[in-house]
Amino acid sequence: MTGGRRYTPSVTDRSGTPGRFITLEGPEGGGKTTQARRLADLLEAHDFEAVLTREPGGTVIGERIRELLLDDGLASQLGARTDALLFNAARTQLVDEVIAPSLGRGAVVVATRFADSTLAYQGFGSGLPLADLRVLERFTLGALRPDLTIVLDLPVEAGLARKTQGEMTRFEIGFDLAFHERVRKGFLSLAAAEPGRFAVVDALGEPDGVAEEIAKVVARLPGLEALASTPRTNGEPSTLAGRIHR
Amino acid sequence: MTGGRRYTPSVTDRSGTPGRFITLEGPEGGGKTTQARRLADLLEAHDFEAVLTREPGGTVIGERIRELLLDDGLASQLGARTDALLFNAARTQLVDEVIAPSLGRGAVVVATRFADSTLAYQGFGSGLPLADLRVLERFTLGALRPDLTIVLDLPVEAGLARKTQGEMTRFEIGFDLAFHERVRKGFLSLAAAEPGRFAVVDALGEPDGVAEEIAKVVARLPGLEALASTPRTNGEPSTLAGRIHR
Repeated sequence: MTGGRRYTPSVTDRSGTPGRFITLEGPEGGGKTTQARRLADLLEAHDFEAVLTREPGGTVIGERIRELLLDDGLASQLGARTDALLFNAARTQLVDEVIAPSLGRGAVVVATRFADSTLAYQGFGSGLPLADLRVLERFTLGALRPDLTIVLDLPVEAGLARKTQGEMTRFEIGFDLAFHERVRKGFLSLAAAEPGRFAVVDALGEPDGVAEEIAKVVARLPGLEALASTPRTNGEPSTLAGRIHR
Repeated sequence: MTGGRRYTPSVTDRSGTPGRFITLEGPEGGGKTTQARRLADLLEAHDFEAVLTREPGGTVIGERIRELLLDDGLASQLGARTDALLFNAARTQLVDEVIAPSLGRGAVVVATRFADSTLAYQGFGSGLPLADLRVLERFTLGALRPDLTIVLDLPVEAGLARKTQGEMTRFEIGFDLAFHERVRKGFLSLAAAEPGRFAVVDALGEPDGVAEEIAKVVARLPGLEALASTPRTNGEPSTLAGRIHR
């Protein structure tokens, strides 16, 4: 398990909101969903309110947009700009309904995928200009940015091999290995360009070790230092059904 | 029937594409759909290829987005930014699949609603900053702009009164008169700011007179001067089922 990149949290970007906003990003098969749940468990074991979100989705409208984006029958027709606009539509709804209110009351939001996925997939992967996508990001998010973005990094072949047939969407099936390589390099390039917000964690090892590494990185966020110590309970995964916004 | 505003077509904006792109805009109940069909009939009577589109919709994906946007159950949840992103998602798909290829082969595209509706409804109506919406417009359209935009203008009460209950969507029902007044003024303000592209036509009169006025305005477009003369056949409306992209 290699260490996370050093970073300085940029909480000044969101002054006035007391919560913490953590996003989990990276290529396919890195265990984002599992690790998000474990992180939420750990946060709750330390008596923080944790709010889990996933993208696209997380709201009634977002889930409808998710159906559209993941509809196999539409896969060959959806253009990269349409993808980017639909992901941003689901995202602005998720911010308005869930993320902003949660941060406002002091919760820790743990998001599986967020704005950096659009830069990595539709930008680095599909070739839309990053400058255009950043303009779109500003339209969608205003000044909101994650306090910490953890890239769960692993080789593309290893990640895709972890996915079962049933879990595969058009984003895994419809694009070739070269596309996924560009996506992976995209995430690493975003992380390198913004070390103050990003941490890269090696996701190839056992989930326990990855979870430990994530906890160390999160514990560097102001207010979350307690995560460096032993929690009152352990961080075993649970279903967390009532807590997941989808 | 008052006359259309004078304008100079800005065909240089889309050099290299031989077709002509005409959009019909304006507040509710101005007869945009009817007049678009009549204009397409007239164009075909003069041996031009006419392609009709409507928004949101006009493609398989666009119609799915239309269902979302017009779903009464979601009306209270959809934010203005989500609306703007979804309309732009449907629009970029419509441009890629229908409008750009049609213009490329020299057709005259007649669109019922296009980008100016987003400025009028989500901008002037719902209060999103116009500068943000124009940034979004550039993301969606690139350099593509209509050669001619006709605003079918009429008082808000008169327009809403023309709509039967079955035709009403959340955009007519869910917003108050003041909203629709802002939308109407928005269209007029956009037209005043860009007289080279816009023409305002009084839509309060009989459809025949409005159609005549529209024909006069369209005949000023380079290459479409023939519309000022009597066509070989008359411009009676037809169902045009094969020609409507929806």
